[in-house]
Amino acid sequence: MKPAEVAVIMGSDSDLPIMRQAADLLQSMDIPCEMTIVSAHRTPERMFQFAKEAHSRGIKVIIAGAGGAAHLPGMVASLSPLPVIGVPIKSSNSIDGWDSILSILQMPNGVPVATVALNAAQNAGILAAQIIGCQRPEVLEKVVAFKKKLEEAVLDKVEKLNS
Amino acid sequence: MKPAEVAVIMGSDSDLPIMRQAADLLQSMDIPCEMTIVSAHRTPERMFQFAKEAHSRGIKVIIAGAGGAAHLPGMVASLSPLPVIGVPIKSSNSIDGWDSILSILQMPNGVPVATVALNAAQNAGILAAQIIGCQRPEVLEKVVAFKKKLEEAVLDKVEKLNS
Amino acid sequence: MKPAEVAVIMGSDSDLPIMRQAADLLQSMDIPCEMTIVSAHRTPERMFQFAKEAHSRGIKVIIAGAGGAAHLPGMVASLSPLPVIGVPIKSSNSIDGWDSILSILQMPNGVPVATVALNAAQNAGILAAQIIGCQRPEVLEKVVAFKKKLEEAVLDKVEKLNS
Amino acid sequence: MKPAEVAVIMGSDSDLPIMRQAADLLQSMDIPCEMTIVSAHRTPERMFQFAKEAHSRGIKVIIAGAGGAAHLPGMVASLSPLPVIGVPIKSSNSIDGWDSILSILQMPNGVPVATVALNAAQNAGILAAQIIGCQRPEVLEKVVAFKKKLEEAVLDKVEKLNS
Amino acid sequence: MKPAEVAVIMGSDSDLPIMRQAADLLQSMDIPCEMTIVSAHRTPERMFQFAKEAHSRGIKVIIAGAGGAAHLPGMVASLSPLPVIGVPIKSSNSIDGWDSILSILQMPNGVPVATVALNAAQNAGILAAQIIGCQRPEVLEKVVAFKKKLEEAVLDKVEKLNS
Amino acid sequence: MKPAEVAVIMGSDSDLPIMRQAADLLQSMDIPCEMTIVSAHRTPERMFQFAKEAHSRGIKVIIAGAGGAAHLPGMVASLSPLPVIGVPIKSSNSIDGWDSILSILQMPNGVPVATVALNAAQNAGILAAQIIGCQRPEVLEKVVAFKKKLEEAVLDKVEKLNS
Amino acid sequence: MKPAEVAVIMGSDSDLPIMRQAADLLQSMDIPCEMTIVSAHRTPERMFQFAKEAHSRGIKVIIAGAGGAAHLPGMVASLSPLPVIGVPIKSSNSIDGWDSILSILQMPNGVPVATVALNAAQNAGILAAQIIGCQRPEVLEKVVAFKKKLEEAVLDKVEKLNS
Amino acid sequence: MKPAEVAVIMGSDSDLPIMRQAADLLQSMDIPCEMTIVSAHRTPERMFQFAKEAHSRGIKVIIAGAGGAAHLPGMVASLSPLPVIGVPIKSSNSIDGWDSILSILQMPNGVPVATVALNAAQNAGILAAQIIGCQRPEVLEKVVAFKKKLEEAVLDKVEKLNS
Repeated sequence: MKPAEVAVIMGSDSDLPIMRQAADLLQSMDIPCEMTIVSAHRTPERMFQFAKEAHSRGIKVIIAGAGGAAHLPGMVASLSPLPVIGVPIKSSNSIDGWDSILSILQMPNGVPVATVALNAAQNAGILAAQIIGCQRPEVLEKVVAFKKKLEEAVLDKVEKLNS
Repeated sequence: MKPAEVAVIMGSDSDLPIMRQAADLLQSMDIPCEMTIVSAHRTPERMFQFAKEAHSRGIKVIIAGAGGAAHLPGMVASLSPLPVIGVPIKSSNSIDGWDSILSILQMPNGVPVATVALNAAQNAGILAAQIIGCQRPEVLEKVVAFKKKLEEAVLDKVEKLNS
Repeated sequence: MKPAEVAVIMGSDSDLPIMRQAADLLQSMDIPCEMTIVSAHRTPERMFQFAKEAHSRGIKVIIAGAGGAAHLPGMVASLSPLPVIGVPIKSSNSIDGWDSILSILQMPNGVPVATVALNAAQNAGILAAQIIGCQRPEVLEKVVAFKKKLEEAVLDKVEKLNS
Repeated sequence: MKPAEVAVIMGSDSDLPIMRQAADLLQSMDIPCEMTIVSAHRTPERMFQFAKEAHSRGIKVIIAGAGGAAHLPGMVASLSPLPVIGVPIKSSNSIDGWDSILSILQMPNGVPVATVALNAAQNAGILAAQIIGCQRPEVLEKVVAFKKKLEEAVLDKVEKLNS
Repeated sequence: MKPAEVAVIMGSDSDLPIMRQAADLLQSMDIPCEMTIVSAHRTPERMFQFAKEAHSRGIKVIIAGAGGAAHLPGMVASLSPLPVIGVPIKSSNSIDGWDSILSILQMPNGVPVATVALNAAQNAGILAAQIIGCQRPEVLEKVVAFKKKLEEAVLDKVEKLNS
Repeated sequence: MKPAEVAVIMGSDSDLPIMRQAADLLQSMDIPCEMTIVSAHRTPERMFQFAKEAHSRGIKVIIAGAGGAAHLPGMVASLSPLPVIGVPIKSSNSIDGWDSILSILQMPNGVPVATVALNAAQNAGILAAQIIGCQRPEVLEKVVAFKKKLEEAVLDKVEKLNS
Repeated sequence: MKPAEVAVIMGSDSDLPIMRQAADLLQSMDIPCEMTIVSAHRTPERMFQFAKEAHSRGIKVIIAGAGGAAHLPGMVASLSPLPVIGVPIKSSNSIDGWDSILSILQMPNGVPVATVALNAAQNAGILAAQIIGCQRPEVLEKVVAFKKKLEEAVLDKVEKLNS
Repeated sequence: MKPAEVAVIMGSDSDLPIMRQAADLLQSMDIPCEMTIVSAHRTPERMFQFAKEAHSRGIKVIIAGAGGAAHLPGMVASLSPLPVIGVPIKSSNSIDGWDSILSILQMPNGVPVATVALNAAQNAGILAAQIIGCQRPEVLEKVVAFKKKLEEAVLDKVEKLNS
């Protein structure tokens, strides 16, 4: 088994049904990934250790999902030199997702989080693949193929609507 | 000099003009306090150390101000057993303060932050005094006196308006 | 039976299922508390009497939950010298909770309310315990133990996800 | 001097430049009014007394302006049988006026506040005149005349634009 | 049958379940009222005629409910000298009620609408009673009695919670 | 002088600096237009007459700008069979423009208003030209030429940035 | 079969139940229309081709519906000289529709989109009819007849409520 | 001169003062970049060509800034296989930045945009460096050094505050 290049982490196991879509996308592109729970607020020391060490373990990109006052993506970004993709989750304790979005997106100068749409874990997976792919042509080709399939799916529906 | 009972921290020195109002209030009630900068995103290790040790140094209450994706109050609350008061700051990189408020207020179950109004550092100071005072009658009396003065200031203005 | 140290009040009996979580948390930490209904708008005189007398009855902290134009926490804070924790409730007459949050949080200078997240009555209970505990070490230890349990629950889930 | 029929109150003297417009409008229609400061949070007892007694003093309508977590109009409405008109003020401590609007408007069943637009104290004065006028034809005629003048002012501007 | 003193109108028959609460409240206080549908956008001429004539028919107060881009209350207020109470409805085509609230509340200088909370038709009824009652003591007494009952209902629930 | 094909109306003369941009655009395309003030709330009868008659006078498109609780575009749309373009104005009495946008945009089924961006009177002019042009090729060509100029202006700036 | 004068396009087949209402309305007025799927993000080249050619095929008006970050209406407007009507869709990935509305409405100077209410595809159809009708009297008459029916439907309900 | 690895594009030259911060950051890390204006709405064909070809020219990452209905980042992401970083700009025609944020962030499944905070072009530069650096250790070291400097700047301010 190849070592993971992308780590998919989330603040709570209730985020699993959504965050799993990131891992699924990555696996469909043969990008090795790991997935675990790291809570900024309930396991801050685990988060610290995870974030400080991820790049030494060979991780290239971190995908972090969280809801409400979502501090996980930003704190991991402050502790790791790696690019961090943040997935705002519309969890049950969130105000329609606004809190999740703003606490992930609005990072101060010096510490970016690459934020994707609310609940858009699949897009986080694609973005991670694009980042990996930006210097590995065979991964970029998989991204191109994925987009091609999306286009074809639309064209199929156009056909059906016409007939 | 007595050891500090309240620590006033902030994410950036640009928050100083506002956060100083908390320290000023506490000093006016003779509650010893300390004030410093602790950035969750730029000095995460300093934040960890600060939050893990504050209660052993005799600190009773922590007041933390931050703006934008404001993670300082919540992260300190996750690392310390002490009550943490959060002051959302309408900093220049904030969207009218909504990001600051939501990333401080909307903490998950288990890790509360006692949030006050936008920029309301003075109120954070009063709340800290009330917390200290809840078992020290002489401090509670100062809170009562402070409120009395507020009332009198309003009554003076009533007089002036009438005359 | 020991006299209550924390009073949990709410504006309507429809808030009971949520506010009970504050009382449950306090009882789990052996902090004596009382729970009742006090409506700022339907029983203003009862509210006045409650707020003016709470500290003389030995109450140390007041937790007040309310929804919509939620005036209970702020009015009690204006009448009592005690720290008041406000719980914004997303009641049926609330606009996604925004009205509840803003009418509790945005108190003027001089009269803070320690606001917690929308519906976060359990967090209000923890915050009350932290306030009580800030000068009673055995309570603070219970807060530490509570947080430890939260951490362990996450670690258990990490295990399960791995296996 | 005739006894006041309308009371114009406000939470702070900083609301005076706006709230004075209500009094000015009423005076222009010869409706006797009084104006004073009553702070829900800083002078709660004054507020109680004011609200409980207003109708016995001959007051027919109360106009109350406040900003931020604006509890004055709602609390007065809970204590008085009179119609209460609320003026949300966009004060310096308000989040673009949203907090003022929502804490005045979103009153629970049983205790209405007749809310007007942000800072619209003049409209509060007109509404008070309409309420007084609904059983006093000579006041209603003044309202009709006022509206006539508004219309004529627009028609004058139409003329100017054409010429 | 006495002629109506209050007219309850609404923009669509889908608003009927909510607006009926205004009529029910008024009937419970023996204030004669009429109820009908007047659409600003689908029957503008009917609206014009209604609004221009209401006061000559003996109507004292108009209650108008509408949702979405809710122009009915404001347009009636511009055409009638009577006090108009606006009820923002969270209809199916409304964005969480924000559109309804803002298009009713934010009227320009000269043309107030007395806005109540989202869907708060019962409160509109109470406010109409207070307006009628401000010069008819026997109606004001009914308002006082209504509030008394609200208070007693809360106290009953307090009893139940205690027992 | 040719009779006007487009009428540009606005609720207040304070909207003139913005609404004039619609007229300027139309004149630059040689589309005859008229411009005047029609207030829904202050001159409702003038508005009725204007809207009922516009199409008989040869007007093809109406552009209506208004701010706050902006009822002018929607009411004109309800009274006229012509396409109505609404321009939400961020006037001084508007809450950051949200009230203007929502009260113009959120029209009920049956009565559309073609809403453009906040303060975007020039775009309203272009849209009117496109509507006129959809069956008059020489106008459509002017729209094409206008867009061509926009493109060239960008390309000029690209040049300058490069040099 | 007559060539289509109106093209109804949408970003995804999940928008079909809503967007079909535009086509139904147009068909009820005998305005020939076509309906298809054109995704700005999944089939950008199809979108380019569609938008560049529509006017040469005899299309007079384009109706485009999309949700979330809804770029279809604006991009088509930038590529075509025709008037484009945008329908913001409250799709499953939308934040209560705000993202759909703002990304369609807030177009820059030079490139208007005629935006209708959230999900208001029927209104888009009516607006297209009004645009077509602004120089074809027999279509305008159908719009007048449609509005007449709306009015009669309300009057019928008034009757029922009375009886 | 080395060929550019990062392209910094923006919708309008008014975005230049902000977007230049991305280029400055990249130059400070010796990452070759190019900067130009590409308007989605005014030069759609230029945008198409740019986005289709960027990766063949050796570009690894695209940074795109835009305001209002900001379609540039999302459209480029739909046309290019490269990772696209979106910078929402609070331009003069934006509603406090909400429109810019939502039209960049809320992209549909399949087409992510890595969104950073409002106006945070410097953070976009850092994120691009992290992406480049995720497989080029010497760039990652520069990111580490950059973060070290941020930390030191805070610690210097801590010193100053203490002295």
